[in-house]
Amino acid sequence: MSAGKHFVSDPKNLVRDSLSGLVAANPHLAFDEKQKVTYVKDLAVLRTKQVTLFCGGGSGHEPAHAGFVGHGMLTAAVSGHVFASPSSSQVLSCLRRVYSEEHGALVVIKNYTGDVLNFGRAVERFKSESVNQGKPLPKVAMVVVDDDVGVVNPNDDDEGGVGRRGLAGTVIVNKLAGARAASGASLSEVKAVAEYVVSNTFTIGCALNAASVPGQGMPRVLSDDEIEIGMGIHNEPGFETKKLEAADTLIPSLVSHIVGSAPFRKAHPGHSGRVILMVNNLGATSNLELGLITKLAVEATRDHGFEPVRVYSGTFMTGLAMPGASISLLVLPLDELLRNELLALADQPASCPGWVNQAWVEDAGCTDESAEAPSIHVEPTSNETWERVISMAYDNVVTDEPQVTLLDQLMGDGDCGQVLLSGATAIRDAAQSTQLPLNDPAAALARISSIVEDSMGGTSGIIYCLFLDGLAQQIRSLNVADNASLTPKLWGQAMLGALDTLYQYTSARPGHRTLIDALQPFASSLALDGKLELALEAADKGAAATAQMQPKRGRAVYVQQKESTADAGAAGLVSVLRGIVSALL
Amino acid sequence: MSAGKHFVSDPKNLVRDSLSGLVAANPHLAFDEKQKVTYVKDLAVLRTKQVTLFCGGGSGHEPAHAGFVGHGMLTAAVSGHVFASPSSSQVLSCLRRVYSEEHGALVVIKNYTGDVLNFGRAVERFKSESVNQGKPLPKVAMVVVDDDVGVVNPNDDDEGGVGRRGLAGTVIVNKLAGARAASGASLSEVKAVAEYVVSNTFTIGCALNAASVPGQGMPRVLSDDEIEIGMGIHNEPGFETKKLEAADTLIPSLVSHIVGSAPFRKAHPGHSGRVILMVNNLGATSNLELGLITKLAVEATRDHGFEPVRVYSGTFMTGLAMPGASISLLVLPLDELLRNELLALADQPASCPGWVNQAWVEDAGCTDESAEAPSIHVEPTSNETWERVISMAYDNVVTDEPQVTLLDQLMGDGDCGQVLLSGATAIRDAAQSTQLPLNDPAAALARISSIVEDSMGGTSGIIYCLFLDGLAQQIRSLNVADNASLTPKLWGQAMLGALDTLYQYTSARPGHRTLIDALQPFASSLALDGKLELALEAADKGAAATAQMQPKRGRAVYVQQKESTADAGAAGLVSVLRGIVSALL
Repeated sequence: MSAGKHFVSDPKNLVRDSLSGLVAANPHLAFDEKQKVTYVKDLAVLRTKQVTLFCGGGSGHEPAHAGFVGHGMLTAAVSGHVFASPSSSQVLSCLRRVYSEEHGALVVIKNYTGDVLNFGRAVERFKSESVNQGKPLPKVAMVVVDDDVGVVNPNDDDEGGVGRRGLAGTVIVNKLAGARAASGASLSEVKAVAEYVVSNTFTIGCALNAASVPGQGMPRVLSDDEIEIGMGIHNEPGFETKKLEAADTLIPSLVSHIVGSAPFRKAHPGHSGRVILMVNNLGATSNLELGLITKLAVEATRDHGFEPVRVYSGTFMTGLAMPGASISLLVLPLDELLRNELLALADQPASCPGWVNQAWVEDAGCTDESAEAPSIHVEPTSNETWERVISMAYDNVVTDEPQVTLLDQLMGDGDCGQVLLSGATAIRDAAQSTQLPLNDPAAALARISSIVEDSMGGTSGIIYCLFLDGLAQQIRSLNVADNASLTPKLWGQAMLGALDTLYQYTSARPGHRTLIDALQPFASSLALDGKLELALEAADKGAAATAQMQPKRGRAVYVQQKESTADAGAAGLVSVLRGIVSALL
Repeated sequence: MSAGKHFVSDPKNLVRDSLSGLVAANPHLAFDEKQKVTYVKDLAVLRTKQVTLFCGGGSGHEPAHAGFVGHGMLTAAVSGHVFASPSSSQVLSCLRRVYSEEHGALVVIKNYTGDVLNFGRAVERFKSESVNQGKPLPKVAMVVVDDDVGVVNPNDDDEGGVGRRGLAGTVIVNKLAGARAASGASLSEVKAVAEYVVSNTFTIGCALNAASVPGQGMPRVLSDDEIEIGMGIHNEPGFETKKLEAADTLIPSLVSHIVGSAPFRKAHPGHSGRVILMVNNLGATSNLELGLITKLAVEATRDHGFEPVRVYSGTFMTGLAMPGASISLLVLPLDELLRNELLALADQPASCPGWVNQAWVEDAGCTDESAEAPSIHVEPTSNETWERVISMAYDNVVTDEPQVTLLDQLMGDGDCGQVLLSGATAIRDAAQSTQLPLNDPAAALARISSIVEDSMGGTSGIIYCLFLDGLAQQIRSLNVADNASLTPKLWGQAMLGALDTLYQYTSARPGHRTLIDALQPFASSLALDGKLELALEAADKGAAATAQMQPKRGRAVYVQQKESTADAGAAGLVSVLRGIVSALL
């Protein structure tokens, strides 16, 4: 069993130090280090304006609860040790600090024995203090969240029992009650919202494994093909350990479990209505997977006749770094007015790091056509010179392919010859079947570039593409009357411009043992002299010189240099250039 | 090597489905499922108003990048397969969709070969398209983020090289450039902000393990005592694997590495200035630990002479569920005006699920005294009756302790007798040393309750406390002139009221085999008849009856019932009550 690996110094101080970090990153928070109470910095003003409310419990569930402290949500949070209730003295200190003489305070907790008793005792101590000072009984209410429908205690009965546990639904209680408090409502109104959410929120969790506790390690380990349904946020065993199944089976089964649970059926016998859906990362589920879970949970909820009018997907209530997720459904009132009141509370922004405020924008209708439609509408045309060039370049690549392949086998991964041939073939086929706008060189080059990308792929393919794109733009910018006006010198200058485009995207330069070592000399020579033979000679020399170069980029970097052979990519390009030049001379 | 456990259906569709989930939870987003482009719903309007900008790359880094799409940040994001660049066609589709004819578009990417080439190719294709349609060259700029200072490619040289990788700093680029764009700046101004951030942000990551890839599993596994420094967000090896050390050693060493790295020293030779600090969860670090890392990173940054004026702590750029974290420093300009401009961009709200907007509130100065000061200022007084009651209750508990312990050993964890004795001793000591306000019964009870909590602890202790708190409040509310006016009947009624308080916090009721089975009959009898002997008899009967009860609450629930013995808690309470009654008769 793994001891667990953690970022931790002294586990004793972990909670205190972690909250210090939270406060360091959140300028609206203040921190009572001794009592581990996190609160809004303007609390002294805030409590003159509204009902204050706080939540708390053991640590290890972050962002719950200190991450939800902020305007529009919690006024404060009080934290115990990892997975352990704060003492009643800590809670009392928090209550004294938070309490609004004028408006009162609401305490929201999760239904765990330790929390209920310690928070309860703090509330009663606070009342005793008050009456012993001759003050009236303070306006303090407590709400206990018990949204879990995964584990029902076998000792529970009609009289109540220890009841269901508090899970991610607690965060929804905090959100809606916090929004109600911020709107200036009375304590009984705020409490009524909290109680509605408590009575109508149902959660189930599942986990691929338990969570390791800093300083303690893993309490138990599931096997590689197991998943536990109903695991608690403190690693408490769930109600079923089963073979891990595909998410599109698992997630609907979780939603079915919620909707079919006794507490849900009792509260909502009819399978219809609008719900708020919360998909909660228990800590170590990738957000990529959480997105999938969210999609499946939305669909499964709909399949049961409930419409999720708000979906919250994120990390709200964790079990340290537990690889798992929970799904919560809050069933909204059938009455439209009441429902809209609750939704307005849900939508009210909360200024805290843990809550994900949803943005609303008007759908401006951005049709797919603008993104999908090919933007080049150029009629294919025939051009004898271009066709000859393409054909002879192809022939040359066919002839040289074995040699290029051999070079790449010596210093590379051996596919260079075939990849080049594949590109040359695709271009030749397109030209032969008159698919290219050959009388419009810029358009032709742009089209060829896309053919190269589709047929060659990989890094070398895209290097060709980028050069061809740049060349197309250069040729277009020359704005010449016809093909014939494009002298070799102009082509050379355009090629130099295209190299500048290419150099924006690769750091390969002459001397790095790549095809650049052939391409750059060809372009430079052609731009200078306008003589195809000289340019080809320069490319040939450049390619040959790669044999003496240390590979700095591209395929040969990862290979131990064995012998002095030329770079396959440079050799392949020379093969293409030789074909082109012979067609034009 | 573990195959990895995931919430996944068909890995092929994971990215598409995950983005669907993101969009389901975010009403401001629209989704081109085919091209995997996520964009703001009002894009068609937005692009008439501002420079648009998008980011993208392989998936598996969520919330990067689709989670940062929203007003004030990205206009769109384009996603490839897990850890693989989107194709240039996907990127081109995104660019076509996003491009603002009037204001232009900025493309932000991370420095990986595949991304640079595919996004570059898309930009060049877009330009070619445009010029081939006879339009002017479109206003598109691309910025490549390379904030990593963990791994420097051995082939890098003064000419550039493949360079450093893009990590969490990319998100800061998105944030500041996005805010600049939203403010109506020109493309070159937006690009200038992005480039400043790129040039002055430096990141290092570390991980306790690699991340498992859905459908592929773990590429490698670190041993239980190892940590890797510089691990990439696609599991690329870092520059050092070392023995896992305490966070207060590890985190300062990471910050030292950043500040001592060649790129950092080159850009910022002087060790001073203000910085933005980002502490990023690579996926599966608990938020509890992330808080600690944040605290330590803030301190270490200060130790190096840099003041973190903004601290972002959260999950911004992940490597799936990698248990690790990265630290980024963005060094702000020394010039105050420029610095404040950048800070204003950082502080501008962004309406997207991935960014954590910081709230600002005025510090209203909420002193600790209000929370710390004991609120009961009652002078201790001496009272003969009370002292006799406490003393005789103590004596009785001493006498009965072995029997209570035995009962708890038979059905419980065996500590009941000692815990009760510990409470009785503490109260007796407090009374003997005149620490209790015995002439003010309500205050005395409140004080005794706190002594019970401190000395007894545990669930049974707090049950006593809650009852005593309730009793204190009841007695106070009677508002009697003196001790003598408190008749046994009034005490009984007050005890019934105190039971109501207790019942708010526990579901234990008569018949559940707890001390309630003795307490409730005592209170009821006393309230009815006002006769102490009868009440004691009722308590005794109630305790004896527990021997026949199935345990429903408390200590005995978890123990197999072996023989018909009374509940230890009930027997213990009777012991206390017998002492009290004998003192008063």
